[in-house]
Amino acid sequence: MMDVSQLISFDRINAAIPNAAVVERRLSHLRGVFADPHAYAGALEQGDPLVYSVASVEPAGGEGDLHYGIGKIMPGRVGQEYFLTRGHFHQWRPAAEIYIGLTGSGVMLLEHEQTRRAYSVDLLPDSVVYVPGHTAHRTVNVGDAPLTYLGIYPARAGHDYGALEERNFAQVVVVQDGRPVVLDREHFLASLPILR
Amino acid sequence: MMDVSQLISFDRINAAIPNAAVVERRLSHLRGVFADPHAYAGALEQGDPLVYSVASVEPAGGEGDLHYGIGKIMPGRVGQEYFLTRGHFHQWRPAAEIYIGLTGSGVMLLEHEQTRRAYSVDLLPDSVVYVPGHTAHRTVNVGDAPLTYLGIYPARAGHDYGALEERNFAQVVVVQDGRPVVLDREHFLASLPILR
Repeated sequence: MMDVSQLISFDRINAAIPNAAVVERRLSHLRGVFADPHAYAGALEQGDPLVYSVASVEPAGGEGDLHYGIGKIMPGRVGQEYFLTRGHFHQWRPAAEIYIGLTGSGVMLLEHEQTRRAYSVDLLPDSVVYVPGHTAHRTVNVGDAPLTYLGIYPARAGHDYGALEERNFAQVVVVQDGRPVVLDREHFLASLPILR
Repeated sequence: MMDVSQLISFDRINAAIPNAAVVERRLSHLRGVFADPHAYAGALEQGDPLVYSVASVEPAGGEGDLHYGIGKIMPGRVGQEYFLTRGHFHQWRPAAEIYIGLTGSGVMLLEHEQTRRAYSVDLLPDSVVYVPGHTAHRTVNVGDAPLTYLGIYPARAGHDYGALEERNFAQVVVVQDGRPVVLDREHFLASLPILR
């Protein structure tokens, strides 16, 4: 039980926060996440860079409690696809989440589990993205600097990564003519050269 | 039902946010809130300034949903006591709240309903204050500029102001030798001159 009377200052540049549990995801942890398997294999041959980190704080775990985290996605791409988080549903599906952009330039991919409605929202400094319940969410860094952000969610939300492992997100965020665009995954895959 | 796919950018200086319901509290709305009734009467004779505003966004109201608001407390004092919010419990007592400091310099007063434990936490830019469930919370501006902050809470939290009306907070934040200090209300009241 942490002492809740302490001021918790976070570092918006380094996405650091006291008393947090830090998860780091390198490129090798993200097999099957990026759309283009050839580009992924090629990128891994060049090294195993940090793609993102999340520092989470869980002050208490009761029914009305909240948890929060600070995320950092490094700038970079695998082929045309920008660096991203694995993405997840909440284990407790009704749980919403509020994202607050701190630094950098991002896009969130959202996809409702039942309706399959897929859409994207920009994540910029001093902006809020509301992730409704029952909605898979992935964060993508489309800028040249680290993207950092806060996420706040019900303590009982939990994370479910498994439900996305087979189907992945319906959309991808890729570079075209030097700018980020959101495409249907199938459309993007069909555009890739067959031989290389 | 708002369209959740829109980017919501907030103005951290003016504490403005699109599609928000704004509540403004002037000095005349805060009768009985400040500790020193003589100072309050005297301040009201000088005018009825804005003390604080809260702009709230309620994207959805389901069990796992979240609401959020952006607050602004103007700099100022009533006698020795700094401008503050009325303060509240959540109607649904287990609901926690996460405050994130944006601009200015503040202090939060927190007080557990059952144990009566009263404590204070600084609220500064890029810091997080965790308000546990069952805990009355009031925000105080101890600086010379507006204090702005975000608050995120379960959609079902609700606000209960009534429970505090009779007893008020056990502590006050007042100026002494030009600096803010947190005192027991009774101790502060006893220090006031009887005749003026």
